[in-house]
Amino acid sequence: MSHLKHVAVVGATGAVGVEMLRCLEQRNFPVGQLTLLASARSAGKTMKFKGQDVVIKELTADSFTGVDIALFSAGGGISKEFAPHAVRAGAIVVDNSSAFRMDDEVPLVVPEINAADLKNLPKGIAANPNCTTAITLMALYPLHKAFGVTRVFASSYQAVSGTGAQAIEELEKQTREWAKSERKWDDVRLAPEHVNVYPHQIAFNALPHVDSFLDTGYTKEEMKMENEGRKIMHHDKFRASVTCVRVPVFRAHSVAVSAEFEKPITVEAAREVLRHAPGLDLIDDPTLKQYPLALNVAGHDNCAVGRLRMDCALDNGLAFWVAGDQLLKGAALNAVQIAECL
Amino acid sequence: MSHLKHVAVVGATGAVGVEMLRCLEQRNFPVGQLTLLASARSAGKTMKFKGQDVVIKELTADSFTGVDIALFSAGGGISKEFAPHAVRAGAIVVDNSSAFRMDDEVPLVVPEINAADLKNLPKGIAANPNCTTAITLMALYPLHKAFGVTRVFASSYQAVSGTGAQAIEELEKQTREWAKSERKWDDVRLAPEHVNVYPHQIAFNALPHVDSFLDTGYTKEEMKMENEGRKIMHHDKFRASVTCVRVPVFRAHSVAVSAEFEKPITVEAAREVLRHAPGLDLIDDPTLKQYPLALNVAGHDNCAVGRLRMDCALDNGLAFWVAGDQLLKGAALNAVQIAECL
Repeated sequence: MSHLKHVAVVGATGAVGVEMLRCLEQRNFPVGQLTLLASARSAGKTMKFKGQDVVIKELTADSFTGVDIALFSAGGGISKEFAPHAVRAGAIVVDNSSAFRMDDEVPLVVPEINAADLKNLPKGIAANPNCTTAITLMALYPLHKAFGVTRVFASSYQAVSGTGAQAIEELEKQTREWAKSERKWDDVRLAPEHVNVYPHQIAFNALPHVDSFLDTGYTKEEMKMENEGRKIMHHDKFRASVTCVRVPVFRAHSVAVSAEFEKPITVEAAREVLRHAPGLDLIDDPTLKQYPLALNVAGHDNCAVGRLRMDCALDNGLAFWVAGDQLLKGAALNAVQIAECL
Repeated sequence: MSHLKHVAVVGATGAVGVEMLRCLEQRNFPVGQLTLLASARSAGKTMKFKGQDVVIKELTADSFTGVDIALFSAGGGISKEFAPHAVRAGAIVVDNSSAFRMDDEVPLVVPEINAADLKNLPKGIAANPNCTTAITLMALYPLHKAFGVTRVFASSYQAVSGTGAQAIEELEKQTREWAKSERKWDDVRLAPEHVNVYPHQIAFNALPHVDSFLDTGYTKEEMKMENEGRKIMHHDKFRASVTCVRVPVFRAHSVAVSAEFEKPITVEAAREVLRHAPGLDLIDDPTLKQYPLALNVAGHDNCAVGRLRMDCALDNGLAFWVAGDQLLKGAALNAVQIAECL
């Protein structure tokens, strides 16, 4: 059957790769053949897909023969090196890394926002946005369409899953290392040998450092919302002041946003817009203590928005809180949704 | 010796009360007599002060005979009921609750900023500010003096100590409950019986809910920065858009701030101002991965500021990250500093 696709997953054993397999399965993606690619270290191991064991192969330049769609999530370096091989072999690449996101010839897509951009794939590559950006835009874009956003001030509360499987393990291990001791709440600092993935302890801490620093004092991560947001929303004047912070949460990001708009906005009008936005749940009932929570969106496809209020420091602004599963809408789900559009 | 004071601590057994005793001791406050007051439940127990056991007494209307200074930290209700008794008995009250902060006849003081306001105590009461506000102002006020702040956008990463000893215990217990199980990172939700102090699980979560909600959709906590900031800085036009978030951190708050100024500001000029600000450490060397961290400021008197950068979404703004020990500068230390000024 010709509508069945040969799908390759590059970085299959990573935190995002595992979720990509789950999304392909749960969404009944028409997978005819599945090729799992990873480093030599993982080659020969197997992963389950639809109840069957699939053997992982080592990623090489020749891995993509016959592949229709290659989902990459193994870091920017791997994407830069191997995506061209995949394209040359005839595959379309959906890349989860930052390698091609700002390339003018590569569409950067959140399907609920700009699926139409996938019509042109001059390089045979489509890019998946930064996780914090994608999750924020799920709420911001519907508001932009209705009220015209000019700028945002945003602070993130990012889960360790965004760094990958090793970071997840580090938070697990650090937490258990403290918990198994008799130490109390005022004695939570761990010995240096327990701090490896992040430059500082993540358990019981908040690290204002995600991705590497630029000369401006911003991190690369902090600039993605403005840069990628402009491209995804087709809005060249969009401004975003962002602080990205890693917190001891496992798999869902939360973002506090103050957004300024051109047209008059009210909380009620914003609620009406967000209630009908695709892929988004409006959870906004303070009297019942209902608002989006990282723990509640974890494992869910939809993002959630709440805490809507007129912004105190903007003359026509709305403050809100948005949360989403970093591994799903922030990565694997969005990539598979892009593949579905192709 | 007449310079020795009879000091009473109301709420002595609470998280802040314990730190008040430590501050009085470490700063060599001239304590001639110490009266520890708490609920009937704690009466009869003892606490150590300068190596001696002091018996805790039950707080009553008659507790303040002969007391010179009464430090209150037992919640707004207790302050409202018992502060007048203390004043009537001749004591000066330093109140850590929100009960009197916005009272025109009660100075609200961060000693590094507005110690002069303590000259007038028409009610015999001085108020200690909200912890997030005090910590933020330690960095914001020096910048305001130099450049004239107009408004801020701030998001907090607040420790559980701000809620009190029970909340500290809840985070400890929730963390250990998960850690002692065989459960992995993607299975961290605890049974409802482990969730008591906060409306939702705090371990491995981020709660956009600190203090109670107002009709506007803001929490009371979120409005304190604007309301208390105006009073402390004597700056009636100061605007603050704040999102207050509880994170699984034990005792230090962090705050991400975007601040707009009247006069031209540069990162270098801001660094120069902050380097000389009292009670504040400038920790701002991204290349060495040095920035303020909740874990590092915990237990320290000074607050810390870093991550200075020109704000991306303001035409004359600075973004920064400030952290401080919630129990010290956010509460006990500031209260004892006020007492020292009196």
